[in-house]
Amino acid sequence: MKVVEKISENNNYTAIDMGSLDKLMEYSFPHPKSGNEVRGKVFLKEHTKSTGTEISFQYLPAHSEPGYFHIHNKNEETYIIIKGKGEFQVDNDCFPVKEGSVVRVSPEGKRGLRNSSGEEMVYIVIQSKEGSLEEYSSDDGTRVNWESAWK
Amino acid sequence: MKVVEKISENNNYTAIDMGSLDKLMEYSFPHPKSGNEVRGKVFLKEHTKSTGTEISFQYLPAHSEPGYFHIHNKNEETYIIIKGKGEFQVDNDCFPVKEGSVVRVSPEGKRGLRNSSGEEMVYIVIQSKEGSLEEYSSDDGTRVNWESAWK
Repeated sequence: MKVVEKISENNNYTAIDMGSLDKLMEYSFPHPKSGNEVRGKVFLKEHTKSTGTEISFQYLPAHSEPGYFHIHNKNEETYIIIKGKGEFQVDNDCFPVKEGSVVRVSPEGKRGLRNSSGEEMVYIVIQSKEGSLEEYSSDDGTRVNWESAWK
Repeated sequence: MKVVEKISENNNYTAIDMGSLDKLMEYSFPHPKSGNEVRGKVFLKEHTKSTGTEISFQYLPAHSEPGYFHIHNKNEETYIIIKGKGEFQVDNDCFPVKEGSVVRVSPEGKRGLRNSSGEEMVYIVIQSKEGSLEEYSSDDGTRVNWESAWK
């Protein structure tokens, strides 16, 4: 079974390596509630020590689907399709998604998706607490003078 | 200039399409502070109406770099490399990154990166408020019985 590797770390960051995205099917874990093996999915929060998001990657083989709909309690989810294409459904709306599609879903939205194509599909899911962001983009950032190690 | 297209929306979600990831260089905007044109970068918060994250995509051509280091005020950032390879630096640590690398940086970490390779590099940056996540993964989710439109 594939494991996430640590690259480097100090008090201000943690860098990890999941490996090539076409090898995500080598990841698996037992679902914490059902005990069933979940394949092709990797959760990153414990590895990166993130405190504002839970990010996961999911690989879906051709013509497959996770097979359930779900809602959330406190968290908004954003789905980013980075390979392949399929169908996404929230409540009663079903629409096509493909590489470059991004879907933001409120906690109460009933969501599900499938890979309806003959090729692999890879997507990222980002959980964050709904309404938690205060400042963003360049308003929250400040450029600093700092020596790059590659110069 | 390329624009983000809306796919579909109801009160519980917004779905958008950025287009193919190898066309990200067609996006550009004037930097809100310097006024300089920023190419190959697209911010998604206003498009997806997200409330817990600001997610952006960045395309770096071969042998290029954004050219600055920065810190944040309230937000943690997570960088996900989805194509190519390069070097990432936080404070005085410099390390190689490639497809499948993920780097979580605290607000005060001085961060910069470059595409040191002869191929394109694409990465995602996720801003979220440091310390804002309360529940996560399957603890925050509940499976629901719901009819999929594709059955």
